[in-house]
Amino acid sequence: MFIVLKNNPDPVQLESLKSWLTSKDIQIHTSEGTTTTVLGLVGDTSTIDIDIIAALGIVEDVKRIQEPFKNANRKFHPDDTVIKVGNTQIGGGNLTIMAGPCSVETEEQMVTVAKAVKASGATMLRGGAFKPRSSPYAFQGLGKEGLRLLSLAKKETGLPVISEIMEVSQLPLFDDVDIFQVGARNMQNFNLLSVLGKQDKPVLIKRGLSSTYEELLMSAEYVMASGNAQVILCERGIRTFETYTRNILDIGAIPALKKLSHLPVIIDPSHATGKWDLVPSTAMAAVAAGADGLLIEVHNDPEKALCDGPQSLKVDTFDELAQKLLAVHGFMQELEEGSS
Amino acid sequence: MFIVLKNNPDPVQLESLKSWLTSKDIQIHTSEGTTTTVLGLVGDTSTIDIDIIAALGIVEDVKRIQEPFKNANRKFHPDDTVIKVGNTQIGGGNLTIMAGPCSVETEEQMVTVAKAVKASGATMLRGGAFKPRSSPYAFQGLGKEGLRLLSLAKKETGLPVISEIMEVSQLPLFDDVDIFQVGARNMQNFNLLSVLGKQDKPVLIKRGLSSTYEELLMSAEYVMASGNAQVILCERGIRTFETYTRNILDIGAIPALKKLSHLPVIIDPSHATGKWDLVPSTAMAAVAAGADGLLIEVHNDPEKALCDGPQSLKVDTFDELAQKLLAVHGFMQELEEGSS
Amino acid sequence: MFIVLKNNPDPVQLESLKSWLTSKDIQIHTSEGTTTTVLGLVGDTSTIDIDIIAALGIVEDVKRIQEPFKNANRKFHPDDTVIKVGNTQIGGGNLTIMAGPCSVETEEQMVTVAKAVKASGATMLRGGAFKPRSSPYAFQGLGKEGLRLLSLAKKETGLPVISEIMEVSQLPLFDDVDIFQVGARNMQNFNLLSVLGKQDKPVLIKRGLSSTYEELLMSAEYVMASGNAQVILCERGIRTFETYTRNILDIGAIPALKKLSHLPVIIDPSHATGKWDLVPSTAMAAVAAGADGLLIEVHNDPEKALCDGPQSLKVDTFDELAQKLLAVHGFMQELEEGSS
Amino acid sequence: MFIVLKNNPDPVQLESLKSWLTSKDIQIHTSEGTTTTVLGLVGDTSTIDIDIIAALGIVEDVKRIQEPFKNANRKFHPDDTVIKVGNTQIGGGNLTIMAGPCSVETEEQMVTVAKAVKASGATMLRGGAFKPRSSPYAFQGLGKEGLRLLSLAKKETGLPVISEIMEVSQLPLFDDVDIFQVGARNMQNFNLLSVLGKQDKPVLIKRGLSSTYEELLMSAEYVMASGNAQVILCERGIRTFETYTRNILDIGAIPALKKLSHLPVIIDPSHATGKWDLVPSTAMAAVAAGADGLLIEVHNDPEKALCDGPQSLKVDTFDELAQKLLAVHGFMQELEEGSS
Repeated sequence: MFIVLKNNPDPVQLESLKSWLTSKDIQIHTSEGTTTTVLGLVGDTSTIDIDIIAALGIVEDVKRIQEPFKNANRKFHPDDTVIKVGNTQIGGGNLTIMAGPCSVETEEQMVTVAKAVKASGATMLRGGAFKPRSSPYAFQGLGKEGLRLLSLAKKETGLPVISEIMEVSQLPLFDDVDIFQVGARNMQNFNLLSVLGKQDKPVLIKRGLSSTYEELLMSAEYVMASGNAQVILCERGIRTFETYTRNILDIGAIPALKKLSHLPVIIDPSHATGKWDLVPSTAMAAVAAGADGLLIEVHNDPEKALCDGPQSLKVDTFDELAQKLLAVHGFMQELEEGSS
Repeated sequence: MFIVLKNNPDPVQLESLKSWLTSKDIQIHTSEGTTTTVLGLVGDTSTIDIDIIAALGIVEDVKRIQEPFKNANRKFHPDDTVIKVGNTQIGGGNLTIMAGPCSVETEEQMVTVAKAVKASGATMLRGGAFKPRSSPYAFQGLGKEGLRLLSLAKKETGLPVISEIMEVSQLPLFDDVDIFQVGARNMQNFNLLSVLGKQDKPVLIKRGLSSTYEELLMSAEYVMASGNAQVILCERGIRTFETYTRNILDIGAIPALKKLSHLPVIIDPSHATGKWDLVPSTAMAAVAAGADGLLIEVHNDPEKALCDGPQSLKVDTFDELAQKLLAVHGFMQELEEGSS
Repeated sequence: MFIVLKNNPDPVQLESLKSWLTSKDIQIHTSEGTTTTVLGLVGDTSTIDIDIIAALGIVEDVKRIQEPFKNANRKFHPDDTVIKVGNTQIGGGNLTIMAGPCSVETEEQMVTVAKAVKASGATMLRGGAFKPRSSPYAFQGLGKEGLRLLSLAKKETGLPVISEIMEVSQLPLFDDVDIFQVGARNMQNFNLLSVLGKQDKPVLIKRGLSSTYEELLMSAEYVMASGNAQVILCERGIRTFETYTRNILDIGAIPALKKLSHLPVIIDPSHATGKWDLVPSTAMAAVAAGADGLLIEVHNDPEKALCDGPQSLKVDTFDELAQKLLAVHGFMQELEEGSS
Repeated sequence: MFIVLKNNPDPVQLESLKSWLTSKDIQIHTSEGTTTTVLGLVGDTSTIDIDIIAALGIVEDVKRIQEPFKNANRKFHPDDTVIKVGNTQIGGGNLTIMAGPCSVETEEQMVTVAKAVKASGATMLRGGAFKPRSSPYAFQGLGKEGLRLLSLAKKETGLPVISEIMEVSQLPLFDDVDIFQVGARNMQNFNLLSVLGKQDKPVLIKRGLSSTYEELLMSAEYVMASGNAQVILCERGIRTFETYTRNILDIGAIPALKKLSHLPVIIDPSHATGKWDLVPSTAMAAVAAGADGLLIEVHNDPEKALCDGPQSLKVDTFDELAQKLLAVHGFMQELEEGSS
């Protein structure tokens, strides 16, 4: 961490700052330039609140050198984290395809879709029981009954399930859910993250609409600092000025997050684009860029049902896509082995 | 609402769509162009999920004409909403100054600051007991004890208090708080909004970092649709590409939100800029643009305390600013009266 | 196009608007709802300025249905445009790799890099002679001499060259350049675009830092409307709130632009990420998503030279990447053939 | 400037970097931490290209301490720049109101509007002869004839004029124009900026749609480094995710730019909001925040003309606004004097 001082800093305040830092076992290296003096701090600065320093009258700017996250940091955990769920593994060279409808609606829908996606190669079933909707007048999901139907489809197919939890009070209903999904709008719901940090079950955290990599990793840090190391990162598109697609898929997040962290990275091309016909190309891109898996919306009959979003694939379109994704993933692995 | 059809739509699916719409009491006006056919829908389209229509194979695009919010809509409630809190009113030509420290720390701090801001003209006291922090290692607020100290400062000064609630389970602790504050990161915590919609106390909702006006008003709609009409909107800066300031204050949000809605609009220049020396100019701008009030961070001694953010004003700087804000507000009102 | 009228529009103004539209051969379909009246316009609305309509006192909103671009529009030109440059083709199933240094520096550098990238499979040489730099104190490129060195490397290797033109007055210097590159900061330099529209040589247009797909296609339209149909679109990253990478590569732009337009789409992963170690993953993603080519910065010795940006690959890293890109492209084509 | 090294940097490369820096008269202070080593550079680092350093294999990150602009920097020029144009001054406590139509159309229009805005208190006339339009099919301005009409209105009223120059070749036509306006889309047209730096006439530079303060000031630096110190900065709204208004007016840019630089700051509320009914509130805000002037679009009869954008004010609405702006400006000055 570096502290850039204002010109002619008050010596009493400067002394007070220095002794406060020293009391925290920080060593101080001073560089005096012609116009600016800079203090270089050496030691464990992760517990120092950067805002505290920046607020001081003698300080012009503070710049952090080390990342503020530890548990999620690749520097301290060089090996990839691999997360076991049922018979499947997330990370470690696998391509995990999580598929299912946006929202759980009927038993027939869930079982039909679950069987279909399993046959296509999906190793996990997704489905929303609690749906965050921007309008209070829109369908908010089946809730408890939705989780029961998910459970039933899990029994029928053996696929582990992932579903979104929106609030701490819903926790008891998630006994049969295998992965907690934290939605983009809840990425900084710190109470929820802390409580999930005390559960013995993986947590998939979706990046917020305008959250930085660092903020996403700090949210992972909330879960990990509370004791749960099984965290999965999910890029689902960010909000920009472009209005043609609902969001913009940040494909560079895959190598960037993998460089910064050891946690698995999953891509959700359905929400990232918001248009089903853009899902295949972006899903292929995600596999080629090294994603550990995909979270894809699939519906048994979007036409007939009059009840699904424009971002879901039909079962047969999904089947074709899944085959290609697995083929490209296999080819990429051969390429990697060939070059190493 | 308009539905733009693809070329040569399947007639069976088109008929099915039309009869579904008719069953919802929607009249359909068809415009057939040379390359596109468009259905104009007349009737109450607010309950129709735009995503359902957009998902159909025969549909190219759907455009909404009417705003999706009703209770918060100026069109149906032409008069400004005025909210009474203790002896003060928010809206209706008043300038409400809410001031206090970012986080509640000690009894001495709270009482000192409360007395000072009251003397300067503030009519409401702010202070954070529960603090949303992006790092799990940062100070998270005093919690229950913080609310007790706020309560104490309220008794000493008679100022009503506003404080942030982060989770439904904290509700019982907020008995003595006069306005619930919903933070920017919780703007789309729909569970929290619905529960606050059942309380008989005003709710101030901060705009999310990358939320549109429509999304902010839909969050207000969540509270109002649950029965609580006492909603206050708060612009606190949005996230953009600019990194010099923490956020960008969207000053145009004041006239825009007042055109779209009848709810009062409060500006938080402290979070919007993140730098105390930019607070005065932007606060003055907010008053000139017609804001109903300001939410300003004030600290008794930011230098000495080593514990406050770079965005707080000192008590004496705040005093000078408050006098100017009230003067400009008075001058603006004279101008308005002169011109009407 | 739809015109949403305000309540109770002035009948004289309404009549004036209608007769103006009719004079432009536009048919008008009126839908009268309970609260809003909407005019649906049928005919060629591409020459109608949407701002003119929106400015009228009786108009609340105007919504366009048809895209405002014609020459670049896939709807009117269903087949992919293929552009021939020397012995190579851009579009039509090829993967065009354009590679070379960020800026042209010395003869030895250019010839060395040109030979190396040709050996690795590149079919076009890139190199900047005129460099747009945000600082007047930074190196602005070798200019005319740079173009001479590019020409020399072209003679040595037979590779066609692409280089950025910044101003109309530079045109005479570009005789031996095979493709004009229009930089992101010049995407809306309409004078330059119009002049390039009168040349008989392909033009590659880079998307502006915060330009929409529609704006990029309208810039292509400037060139095409002036008579030059050989336009290549280039996504090079957009500006967002994220600061870890210089820009965010919008991978969804590939399928989206190909859906909207028939023009080839090239990806520049070097500028999109700004970090050389993120280039390989994002370049692979671009190929998997269906890009027609890549524009990659390569340097012969970034370490030694102390003169290149952090986004360039070394010659040998590029060689390894190029082999993989061509392999993945080949595999993708087999997959496509298998599924069709 | 700080250079953060990677762990265990190659000693040969490190030595090479150090001697290169020393050859540029830079002193190096080394801080060795447990995990990172940092080099603090002392001396004139403004000519060092940050990208060169960042590209080195031994470097993890580079952080700049000093601003890269000099001529525009408040630190080296503490006093406000005041620019004289005809009988009026921009900066130094004045409120300069520049008003006129978006584009010059007819002699009658120009003379009528010019007389009206002068009567309302405007001290400068604006009008576009060359219009940058995103569509090649839209009206591009009257060009040379437009400048002739502007000149005529100038003679009739004595008001100095400001008009946009889009390209170096247009320079000879601007003899009778008093201030060159550089549009937002040309903010980084470095050739144009350099040429304008050699003229003896003020240059108003509009901030690009997604340009940072630093980039705007670097564009000012281009003009100033070429010899022309008469630069005026103009905030005209930035592009964000919000679609309700065309752009977002960054009101904090006023105090921020004035803190960083000594140049005058003008606000264009017409383009910033894109809606004429949001112009008055945002213009008032700009005055209250300390802007040196406003650039406002005014039209003599937007209804009748069918030819103006939705952001222009009518002559009488402008008159009312101008009176209020001058009144608020006067009141603000009294307040400042009272407090100093």
